[in-house]
Amino acid sequence: MAAEIVNPRSDSSTDQEGAEPLDSFDPAFALHRGGKMAVQATVPIRDKEDLSLAYTPGVARVCTAIAEQPELVNDYTWKSSVVAVVTDGTAVLGLGDIGPQASLPVMEGKAILFKQFGGVDAVPIALDCTDVDDIVETVVRLAPSFGGVNLEDISAPRCFEIERRLQERLDIPVFHDDQHGTAVVTLAALRNAARLSGREIGQLRAVISGAGAAGVAIARMLVEAGIGDVAVADRKGVVSGDRQDLTPVKREVASFTNKAGISGSLEDALAGADVFIGVSGGTVSESAVASMAEGAFVFAMANPNPEVHPEVAHKYAAVVATGRSDFPNQINNVLAFPGIFAGALQVRATRITEGMKIAAAEALAAVVGDDLAADYVIPSPFDERVAPAVTAAVAAAARAEGVARR
Amino acid sequence: MAAEIVNPRSDSSTDQEGAEPLDSFDPAFALHRGGKMAVQATVPIRDKEDLSLAYTPGVARVCTAIAEQPELVNDYTWKSSVVAVVTDGTAVLGLGDIGPQASLPVMEGKAILFKQFGGVDAVPIALDCTDVDDIVETVVRLAPSFGGVNLEDISAPRCFEIERRLQERLDIPVFHDDQHGTAVVTLAALRNAARLSGREIGQLRAVISGAGAAGVAIARMLVEAGIGDVAVADRKGVVSGDRQDLTPVKREVASFTNKAGISGSLEDALAGADVFIGVSGGTVSESAVASMAEGAFVFAMANPNPEVHPEVAHKYAAVVATGRSDFPNQINNVLAFPGIFAGALQVRATRITEGMKIAAAEALAAVVGDDLAADYVIPSPFDERVAPAVTAAVAAAARAEGVARR
Repeated sequence: MAAEIVNPRSDSSTDQEGAEPLDSFDPAFALHRGGKMAVQATVPIRDKEDLSLAYTPGVARVCTAIAEQPELVNDYTWKSSVVAVVTDGTAVLGLGDIGPQASLPVMEGKAILFKQFGGVDAVPIALDCTDVDDIVETVVRLAPSFGGVNLEDISAPRCFEIERRLQERLDIPVFHDDQHGTAVVTLAALRNAARLSGREIGQLRAVISGAGAAGVAIARMLVEAGIGDVAVADRKGVVSGDRQDLTPVKREVASFTNKAGISGSLEDALAGADVFIGVSGGTVSESAVASMAEGAFVFAMANPNPEVHPEVAHKYAAVVATGRSDFPNQINNVLAFPGIFAGALQVRATRITEGMKIAAAEALAAVVGDDLAADYVIPSPFDERVAPAVTAAVAAAARAEGVARR
Repeated sequence: MAAEIVNPRSDSSTDQEGAEPLDSFDPAFALHRGGKMAVQATVPIRDKEDLSLAYTPGVARVCTAIAEQPELVNDYTWKSSVVAVVTDGTAVLGLGDIGPQASLPVMEGKAILFKQFGGVDAVPIALDCTDVDDIVETVVRLAPSFGGVNLEDISAPRCFEIERRLQERLDIPVFHDDQHGTAVVTLAALRNAARLSGREIGQLRAVISGAGAAGVAIARMLVEAGIGDVAVADRKGVVSGDRQDLTPVKREVASFTNKAGISGSLEDALAGADVFIGVSGGTVSESAVASMAEGAFVFAMANPNPEVHPEVAHKYAAVVATGRSDFPNQINNVLAFPGIFAGALQVRATRITEGMKIAAAEALAAVVGDDLAADYVIPSPFDERVAPAVTAAVAAAARAEGVARR
């Protein structure tokens, strides 16, 4: 008679009460009805004996063992395989500050991608607070239940401070995917584009459009990876030390980017540049793309509208990538975050280091192998080699860097 | 090749690295290895088209709709079917204050019982804070992600204030199961015991051993249900207005219990009493049980050691119940909480009222029906009629009391 148990999500009264026009005219609504995820037991509860092991009295022995030897929590609970997907709803996709509840479909989507692609359990936690101190304290208090924290869709510059403070306070990985996931996949694509054209990353000058979470993290990672030079542009132009209007984060960006000392507009900076990386949502004119160096790479990742249309970019660039699934070379962070967390959790890493991110990018790039081509510098999200490769590389890097606990 | 994806929980290195003696000598440890629960996607992500509906760009339309019409969050996310199981680890089973991490096996157990018996998704949230203000603020901030909050294993008297303040702040059900779940099942058993002996609840005088979360809630509920009289005893004896050592909560208990004005010890109070309800973990002497009224009911619910052994109690009492699964009449709150939350979530109740709890107790008692006997005053947790009956009764009561949103 289990079928008689009423599952709130499948209650038939939903259909009786409303006409549900949203569901009938848009398949995205039909798919989202009742949510996209569920919890399941992984142990049987068929009878008294099962109950006496999974719950009282048997569970008390497990609790006592953990109280005496705290690290056993990772062996005997789901803690070490579950990630909190935490947001405050302030920078959701391109929609901006839509609040925690409206962000939930994205967080659920993220959670099921974690599961689907990395075998990692994930729980959406959309917070009803936006103050940095409040978010930090709340996540610290939640942390005993989770093996890692994926920060998501939190607006810049708060996202930088929140991540940094949580990393200082917690001994589990804290990873702002909008920064690092995007940066890892971008670096992988750039490595393969460079390999395709027989160049080293150190020979390239890149220009990033956008100085938010993704732009800043990509700049950091490219510098870490040995880029020749990189300039970051915000709406007011290239971030450089002579500007008086910079936030603390942008002042820091100015300190480690733009060795060439470029000032002026984004389009000024593109003249002669080897790489364009767009994470801004703005647009770039055809003439600016035309002004780039011979054999340039254009990664126009704004969604749903790339900064320059791929067809236009192709007229001038050797490699074109976007954030869209309907063009070749989709730079999608689902290629990175599931494997990065799976690898970190596998070895119970205390944090995700720069070295682990670089290793993830290299593993991701390597999946492409000998099939490398101008329209194939990055694998498909559905390439089943991706997550295992990233997972193994990240776990190995964590051990090499001394942040693994097993 | 999905099998190559490394699931952190099934990593074979676990077995290579450690001898795992705990698993081999105790089946509870073997069962708990890797935890007892997982997350699953309820929608397919097989290809680009699926991804474009469940995640970007399709998800953005659902987010926008919720931002414009907030109540849609209940239709298009899992919010309205997921409960946070929140603890601070201060009163875990009979183990006391073992902290949040050591409490996780109990919270996971609770979560899978929610799913198994009520079809309700539940997520363990063990908090690293014990201050009342901190717990309240943290849960308020988490609330956007959840359809309800089940408070668990939080020590008295803090549990009373935390529940009350959360109920005031939130528009979703907040329910401290150690109080109300236990009270609902106790009332159901008491109703059936009274029916068996042809008496009304109003004719009975009850004595409760234990003035913690469960004892106080049972007292409240018995008064609400019209008990003749009820006295509550703590370690120092019967809670009565003439005592100078009472906490605020116990002073309140004194105000609505003990109409007979009994003072003295628990055993003094039992002389001539009709009902004994033990939720203390203490012991009651055989002579005290013998001093109860003819045809008494003894509910000795301490776990694992009942306040009086059922065989001893049977010498004097007409109905004997315990908290154990290996004796008849197990008073187990798994009979209540899954259906109570399933019913509340089904109608999107803003809270769980006294009327909803009474309705749950009556529905639970009614499942026993014509099979009523001295060793069958309460159904088995595995009786598949229980959760649907409680769910339907609670949903109907929520509508009748005006707290349902649909």
